[in-house]
Amino acid sequence: MKQVDIIVTGEFVVKDAFSHPISDGAVAILGDEIEFVGQRSECLAHYRGQRYIERPKGLVIPGLINAHTHAPMTLFRGLADDLPLKTWLEEHIFPREARLTPDLIALGTELACAEMIRSGTTSFIDMYLFEDTICEVISRVGLRAWLGEGLFDFPSPAFPSGFEALEETRRLLDKWGDHPKITITVDPHTPYTCGHDLLRRAGEVADEMGALLVIHLSETEWEVAEIQRRYRRTPARYLDDLGLLGPRTIAVHVVHPTEDEIGLLSERGVKVVHCPESNQKLGSGVAPVAKMLDAGVRVLLGTDGAASNNDLNMFGEMGSAARLSKGIGCDPTALPATHAFAMATMWAGEALGISGLGTLSPGAPADLAVLDLDSPHLRPCYNPVSHLVYCATAGDVQDLICGGEIVMEDFELTTIDEEDLFMRVEKVASELT
Amino acid sequence: MKQVDIIVTGEFVVKDAFSHPISDGAVAILGDEIEFVGQRSECLAHYRGQRYIERPKGLVIPGLINAHTHAPMTLFRGLADDLPLKTWLEEHIFPREARLTPDLIALGTELACAEMIRSGTTSFIDMYLFEDTICEVISRVGLRAWLGEGLFDFPSPAFPSGFEALEETRRLLDKWGDHPKITITVDPHTPYTCGHDLLRRAGEVADEMGALLVIHLSETEWEVAEIQRRYRRTPARYLDDLGLLGPRTIAVHVVHPTEDEIGLLSERGVKVVHCPESNQKLGSGVAPVAKMLDAGVRVLLGTDGAASNNDLNMFGEMGSAARLSKGIGCDPTALPATHAFAMATMWAGEALGISGLGTLSPGAPADLAVLDLDSPHLRPCYNPVSHLVYCATAGDVQDLICGGEIVMEDFELTTIDEEDLFMRVEKVASELT
Repeated sequence: MKQVDIIVTGEFVVKDAFSHPISDGAVAILGDEIEFVGQRSECLAHYRGQRYIERPKGLVIPGLINAHTHAPMTLFRGLADDLPLKTWLEEHIFPREARLTPDLIALGTELACAEMIRSGTTSFIDMYLFEDTICEVISRVGLRAWLGEGLFDFPSPAFPSGFEALEETRRLLDKWGDHPKITITVDPHTPYTCGHDLLRRAGEVADEMGALLVIHLSETEWEVAEIQRRYRRTPARYLDDLGLLGPRTIAVHVVHPTEDEIGLLSERGVKVVHCPESNQKLGSGVAPVAKMLDAGVRVLLGTDGAASNNDLNMFGEMGSAARLSKGIGCDPTALPATHAFAMATMWAGEALGISGLGTLSPGAPADLAVLDLDSPHLRPCYNPVSHLVYCATAGDVQDLICGGEIVMEDFELTTIDEEDLFMRVEKVASELT
Repeated sequence: MKQVDIIVTGEFVVKDAFSHPISDGAVAILGDEIEFVGQRSECLAHYRGQRYIERPKGLVIPGLINAHTHAPMTLFRGLADDLPLKTWLEEHIFPREARLTPDLIALGTELACAEMIRSGTTSFIDMYLFEDTICEVISRVGLRAWLGEGLFDFPSPAFPSGFEALEETRRLLDKWGDHPKITITVDPHTPYTCGHDLLRRAGEVADEMGALLVIHLSETEWEVAEIQRRYRRTPARYLDDLGLLGPRTIAVHVVHPTEDEIGLLSERGVKVVHCPESNQKLGSGVAPVAKMLDAGVRVLLGTDGAASNNDLNMFGEMGSAARLSKGIGCDPTALPATHAFAMATMWAGEALGISGLGTLSPGAPADLAVLDLDSPHLRPCYNPVSHLVYCATAGDVQDLICGGEIVMEDFELTTIDEEDLFMRVEKVASELT
């Protein structure tokens, strides 16, 4: 009998999006890695756990990966909806962002983490401001994150210029480079809010650091027209000419790509993040996900910030993605549940370059969620992956483990005092309105 | 001090989709009606409750109205997804429907009711088979429902012909006509599964009974082409020529109407039920909801059956509707949260002809849900109606009252034994695969 740290058992264990779920399964965790995945009986015959999380009605899945968010924007959740983009940004979001301080950033991030934990997310990719503060919160809360300070040609609430924010990126790398769950990225905001010089320099820094470069791309028709007007090229061609497209590039949104751009993204190995709920809610349009996947582009899934979603719930996002591709294409076979789940797990894990991330397999990071299947919307359970995409909600997640650390057990968060958090959030909210 | 049966208090009370929410509000219930809605202090000064449901962090709302479902199809939830419509129906759904018995119908209905209760739904409109059995379950469970036996030109699992099923409709009316929460409707299945004679006769029976006539209409492009081929008319024109369109007509789906048909539906006062998740998932397309609303058509909201959704969660459906209209039209102001919430509450209540249904107002049926706001995805709470549409999930509903009867209190169902229910459902599911 080998000693492990945690043994988790469940009615089903979903190893990954494409494997047949294991009935009466178990996962053994040693340190921050998965040691064993398989039948419960086999697990209990070979391993003795320091702790057991036994869920006879549980569905054990890889932790979800939210490939695009702006965590602190939870503070602006539902503050202003259903408005023209310009009004929403200029009259509601920008004036409040100008008042952000590290304390508010920390508060919004903690709220985002509580929400992500409760909705089964173990990893996320964040682009925002004051990322050092965000890193502090993440390291305390226990989630896994890729984080980049937003770069703009104009002053941000955090830095007077994009080049200074880029210097911050280097400092973040020095400070957080060895953290087991934190990775620093290089995040030029968009092709229209960063000039050539900043974009080119960002690309160089990303190359030097071997870091991911995260950028919003082709989110709106306005952006496409604006880049055409300025540079006589499509947005992806423009970035490619600056040397910014490659396998470490994460292009977010990509709602309005041309056929040529789709081919280019595929050729360069760029990863695209689909944010169906935010793209719809802001009236940006609907990204041609099925077409991009067919062209060999790797597509991940993100919620975007809570100001435009308005939640950080990846179950809802998987369902929205899977349904939307079908509805738009009038094709019920488009983006099946397996693919939507892969976008939110293993495909993201591969893009992030950690072996096994987004799967439950020996040697993979011990990132998992357990859902309680004993709820009427999850019965009967013919096909667990279908339920994850088409039925599950945040309230079903009973336990969450990230890198071997239990951050929620039996619906109780272990690293966040929610009662105190909600009080502080409401106090700040009353001052922000 | 007037004695009432129940007093419910909350952090917010949402009276209806368009009124400003009441902070620190209360609802007093006497018998099956609402007696008072207003400030908590005022309520407690004038009323003494037999029982109190006090939720200092609660959001009290009118019970949601699911305007289209096939309740027993919960048994087929997730059984087969992501398939071409014909394969899905002919190889997976029809063969299993052929094996349905009243016992299975009762089981699926009970599961549907448990799910609807947990997701804040107090009323629903059901079209299926063996509706007498469904009525029996509803009357035991305590929800409010409009139910009609499906009419087809061919034999159904319940009746050898549509005319015999229509006779059943009359018997249902005799048996259930006086039930306070059950109303019988006349339900020809579609313009292509019912011939003229059956459609015309269904219209006559509905007129004699003063009943709602519920029919699927213009769900797929195939249907539109088929009706054109058979009758050289669009589906709505065809039904109108048979005298079937009027203010008591509920037309479900209406994904592919022409401008002329939209005008006709508006002119006749027909109510349309939008089912965005099912329409997307089956690849049927996206209904032009904004256009129909602009033309003055009253549009309600439904989940459709759990075989094609795959849940009966009206929170998800409101969010999907609100986002989809924006995404399709590239217009962030399309179908605002207030409208999506009205579709799921007061507009449906008006269509169903019960004064005040879908609102919290004196004299209205005492149908309400309380959501627990103390969850990270609902904080901060600047705008409760925004949260109901864009953030809330089934797991947030803490209490449900229908017609003055408490069917869920503090997350516990009072009329359904869920543990036993889930065991029976899984047993049947293992036989259905």
